[in-house]
Order: sequence, then structure tokens, then C-alpha cells
Amino acid sequence: MELLDVNCCAPLSREPLTARQAVDLAAAFKALGDPVRLRLFSLIASHEGQEACVCELTGEFDVSQPTISHHLKVLREAGLLTSERRASWVYYRVRAEALDALGRLLGTPVG
Amino acid sequence: MELLDVNCCAPLSREPLTARQAVDLAAAFKALGDPVRLRLFSLIASHEGQEACVCELTGEFDVSQPTISHHLKVLREAGLLTSERRASWVYYRVRAEALDALGRLLGTPVG
Repeated sequence: MELLDVNCCAPLSREPLTARQAVDLAAAFKALGDPVRLRLFSLIASHEGQEACVCELTGEFDVSQPTISHHLKVLREAGLLTSERRASWVYYRVRAEALDALGRLLGTPVG
Repeated sequence: MELLDVNCCAPLSREPLTARQAVDLAAAFKALGDPVRLRLFSLIASHEGQEACVCELTGEFDVSQPTISHHLKVLREAGLLTSERRASWVYYRVRAEALDALGRLLGTPVG
């Protein structure tokens, strides 16, 4: 799947989505549509630099590290996170432009 | 399930969600996480008065009216639409405050 196109769409309140636009965007919303995954995403989004190491996330949840890693993969594949390995750890960072694009899509357009 | 609490949360980039907040919000995102449902929602959101009759929506999709009605029910139960019967038709309206709340949640906070 392509990464979410951050310039794809006007706000929903202005113009309906095409079938094609809806596919990628629905994948992003679906990725946010699980309580653990959404909370995980909110932890990274509110962390310094909108970035966190798996090692900083695992302690917050009653689920195993492989489950956390699976959720992070889903968020990455939906275009909401990027990842980078540094030494022994993988760091996940919010794709801020994707988050902004979703915010604009749902928000009230100005003017 | 309770309707989505439109005042529940700070933007994700400012503060992580609690487990409880994440449950209702994830349900709203999950409702938007299907391409047909998301496009259906965008048609209503961009329609005059952010409102549409089932009779105005069915023609846009290659799916049956019962399927459309099912998708509308999922969106309503997630707190994204309200519905009202007038004469023979049910009208669906976007819960604008819920849409705004999701937009604020994902958008970049001002200030």
C-alpha cells in the first residue's frame, strides 16, 4: 500500500471523497480504530519529538511486547508512523503531516 | 455505548489518552475505517445542512440499500451521525460537534 497521501483531500464537510481516496484514508482510520493502538499512538504523539522507542512504550500496557510491536507495524503500514533502528532499539515517530492531513479532513474548514 | 464525549480530550500531540478515553474514540475511528462507510460519511458531511436521506445516498454505491443502512447504523452508534424519521424516509445528519472533536484531537493545537 502507498503511504497516505497527505495532500489528497479537501475537508469532508466541503467535498465528498472519491472511492479511491476513501481506501487509503479508511486504512488510516482503521489503524486508529483499536483502543490499545490509539492509546499507543497518542503516547508517541505526545512524547518529546513525537518519537518513542519500543522500550519506552511497553510498560504502559497490559499486553506483551510482540503485541505492541504488531500494533506499531499496523500504524506504520497505514502511514501514521515511521520507524528507524538505532543501536539495539527501533524508534517510532509520528508522521506529523499525516496526522495534520487527517485533522484537516475532519476539522471545520476555515473560510 | 455512550455517545462520543465531544469534550473528552486534548489533542493527541499534547497529551496521551487514558485507556477509557481511547475506547470511545477508537470506536469512532473504527466506524470511519471502512472505505464505503467513510465515503458515505463524506457524502453526508458535504451535503447541504450536513444531512441526507437514505434515498439520496443509495445511488452512489455499488452496494444494496440494506448494506447502506447497516453502515449508517454503525456511524450512528459510534456517535458520528444522528437520525430522524420524516414521513417515509430516515434522514441522517452529521454530529458536527463529534466531527470537530475528532478534528481537534488529530490536528495541530494552536498556541
